[in-house]
Amino acid sequence: MLSRRSFLGGLCGLAATQGFSFPAPPALPDLRVDPLALRRRIEALSVFGRPEGGTFVDGVSRTAYSDADVAGRRYVINEMKAAGLEPRIDPAGNIFARRPGAEPSLPPILFGSHIDSVPSGGNFDGDLGSLSALGTMEALAAAGVRTRHPLEMVVWAHEESFAFGRGLACSRIVAGDFAPADLDEVWNGMRRADAIRKIGGNPNRIAEARRPKGSHHCYLELHIEQGGTLERSRVPVGVVQGIVAIDRYDVTITGVANHAGTTPIPERHDALLAAAHLTVAVRDAVTRSPGRQVGTVGHLDVSPNSPNVIPGRANVSVELRDLDPQKLVAMMDDIRARAREIATATQTTIEFKTMARAEPATAAPEVQAAIERAAASLTLESSRLPSGAGHDAQMMARLGPMGMIFVPSVGGVSHSPKELTHWQDCANGADVLLRAVLEMDRVD
Amino acid sequence: MLSRRSFLGGLCGLAATQGFSFPAPPALPDLRVDPLALRRRIEALSVFGRPEGGTFVDGVSRTAYSDADVAGRRYVINEMKAAGLEPRIDPAGNIFARRPGAEPSLPPILFGSHIDSVPSGGNFDGDLGSLSALGTMEALAAAGVRTRHPLEMVVWAHEESFAFGRGLACSRIVAGDFAPADLDEVWNGMRRADAIRKIGGNPNRIAEARRPKGSHHCYLELHIEQGGTLERSRVPVGVVQGIVAIDRYDVTITGVANHAGTTPIPERHDALLAAAHLTVAVRDAVTRSPGRQVGTVGHLDVSPNSPNVIPGRANVSVELRDLDPQKLVAMMDDIRARAREIATATQTTIEFKTMARAEPATAAPEVQAAIERAAASLTLESSRLPSGAGHDAQMMARLGPMGMIFVPSVGGVSHSPKELTHWQDCANGADVLLRAVLEMDRVD
Repeated sequence: MLSRRSFLGGLCGLAATQGFSFPAPPALPDLRVDPLALRRRIEALSVFGRPEGGTFVDGVSRTAYSDADVAGRRYVINEMKAAGLEPRIDPAGNIFARRPGAEPSLPPILFGSHIDSVPSGGNFDGDLGSLSALGTMEALAAAGVRTRHPLEMVVWAHEESFAFGRGLACSRIVAGDFAPADLDEVWNGMRRADAIRKIGGNPNRIAEARRPKGSHHCYLELHIEQGGTLERSRVPVGVVQGIVAIDRYDVTITGVANHAGTTPIPERHDALLAAAHLTVAVRDAVTRSPGRQVGTVGHLDVSPNSPNVIPGRANVSVELRDLDPQKLVAMMDDIRARAREIATATQTTIEFKTMARAEPATAAPEVQAAIERAAASLTLESSRLPSGAGHDAQMMARLGPMGMIFVPSVGGVSHSPKELTHWQDCANGADVLLRAVLEMDRVD
Repeated sequence: MLSRRSFLGGLCGLAATQGFSFPAPPALPDLRVDPLALRRRIEALSVFGRPEGGTFVDGVSRTAYSDADVAGRRYVINEMKAAGLEPRIDPAGNIFARRPGAEPSLPPILFGSHIDSVPSGGNFDGDLGSLSALGTMEALAAAGVRTRHPLEMVVWAHEESFAFGRGLACSRIVAGDFAPADLDEVWNGMRRADAIRKIGGNPNRIAEARRPKGSHHCYLELHIEQGGTLERSRVPVGVVQGIVAIDRYDVTITGVANHAGTTPIPERHDALLAAAHLTVAVRDAVTRSPGRQVGTVGHLDVSPNSPNVIPGRANVSVELRDLDPQKLVAMMDDIRARAREIATATQTTIEFKTMARAEPATAAPEVQAAIERAAASLTLESSRLPSGAGHDAQMMARLGPMGMIFVPSVGGVSHSPKELTHWQDCANGADVLLRAVLEMDRVD
């Protein structure tokens, strides 16, 4: 069952074989997640929400609460049952399944991801982590391994920011960040309570979905990187240091709409020109100091948006992300100062409204270390990096130690049908998840 | 009939009374357009296309070929008939009415404007010139004045750039700039031939709407300035030097849409950032040299236009206007050079497509002089200025001498319900039109 080959690869392995004084922990069982079953399931799930007449490479639109989402969830639930699990849907719509541990008084190790997608998304975002969690359960069952902690896999509902204009919606409920009035939100003609009911949740008992702090030993999530850092550095496994803080602002710029031919330049109050200067200012504020911080103007609406009318109003989004919230504050101070100058120069008014503020979530050092040991045991190189994207893991970080495993995204492309993670990288990620579960099982 | 009082006001009048050596042309008859009838008609016409429950100050949406346009045209035709005219609709849909001259072999003096509006437009753009043309006919009839040249008033159809994405549409047909295939254009579910039929034109005989070069002695049009130059300089009458050339481009910027959190700044191909730099570059190119040239980015579309996605594509309009087409070429060279730098810096591609190119139309010097004499005869100060907006007059300039009279727009606002020209300025403009007709009648 235990093999020398699998025991802590890389430098540690070398040190051990050369007889240095490293204390040698008992080796992990040489378990693997079945890579063919993983691929088969990712391909089978891709059918739900696939564009008509398309193939796997045409991506998927399996937005939360859509019929495709319901069908995809049913497929996963059936696969879980076929693997001998007993899936249950919590009142928020999340799918859970437990495997008992040898020490029932210990809190469970929770791991999983989501299977909803953005419109025209890809087949790896969420799906890989969800189906690898299932593969992990299956591998442990097949090998008859009994962990100390109970194990619990989860498929979170409604992770992507599309439905109801919000994301991480159902892990957020489990974390207790939910008000009864949220059930009355209406989006696309659908009440949120009805949406939750559609996926098998129970809005009447929504409060029971909440879990207390310390309800899990740790939370683990495997996910595609969605950026190009791992691919560029040719490192197969990323150990997430944390999930960045995100500040999002809606900026309204008010000028005066007027005739593009008859209004002399000095008389103009051009809202789009002000928006253009502001867009450049956001980039300047982000790049002024070194670091991995990012900032984006992704949304811009102009009114009246006609070639022969000077724009009278522009609406702009500003989004800033970094692990350090203080850096976000400094960037925003910089942007606001520039905005005052721009307003004066363009004879417009510029108003900022804070739309969202997501706190950073730090991955627990002991979980990061466990993931590194897991990768090393597979002789896979790993490196630490922040997650620029939000994940359900940040909600679980509120309840206990959290860690995430990243695998490379080809070209760094995500939220697109072009999203791709090579099957070998998928298999590596699943194996690291499995071993990280076992590593964390040893930690008290 | 002739009065000394009305004979060339201002300096010329002073010179004449003081016995200087100015040659004294025979004085103009002291005619005025009825200012109360003009106001009454502008107010009555404003009802057609008025927002439900609104009043005069709520503006008008009388877009070409709309039911409101048809109703407004019917109102004007009835007023023309009530004034003793015999209106007829040409095959393009323009409304004409003639008054015979003493020398029937002479070509007519043509004058008028339009009554269609932009969506949510004002009650002076076009209406003032059309109804002043009617007032001019009426004043001459009331006074029994027989001009040498036949007189012809016109209410052009479809002047504004809204229906079928084009403007000056029916004066353009008269100028001969029309292809039979244009009748097959479809806009808003309506074929252009059917649209012309709706306003009483005859698409089967459209070729007969064309008029040859030299078919009029001159064309005169009274219009609100739509800019703030006259108001700022407190001059009641503008003598248009010409209508600016307009070059319009559609710019497509292609980057790569990607995740706003996971894509490091150096890896971005941000199409909106490039569009922002280009928007600033257009303004810079316009203001680099002195002059009255203008340039506008009025339209900007972003894709996918989501706060958390780096924009992969942006579409931008660039519009440049000046009396001197060479200046437009120089500005565009400047903009294209900057665009190449921007494309490199933002890792995007920027493509320019020429959408429209309107030649400048020069007002004939003898018509400008006649308008100046007309204003002076009313002791109204006048100044020369270019028209930054397009007008049917530019189409008529292709067939013969053209001139335009501008009156002040309050705040320079136009194409807006807030469009306003004081009634006194309206009356002044109508009187200048009437007298300019008489001045031009003397010119061979």
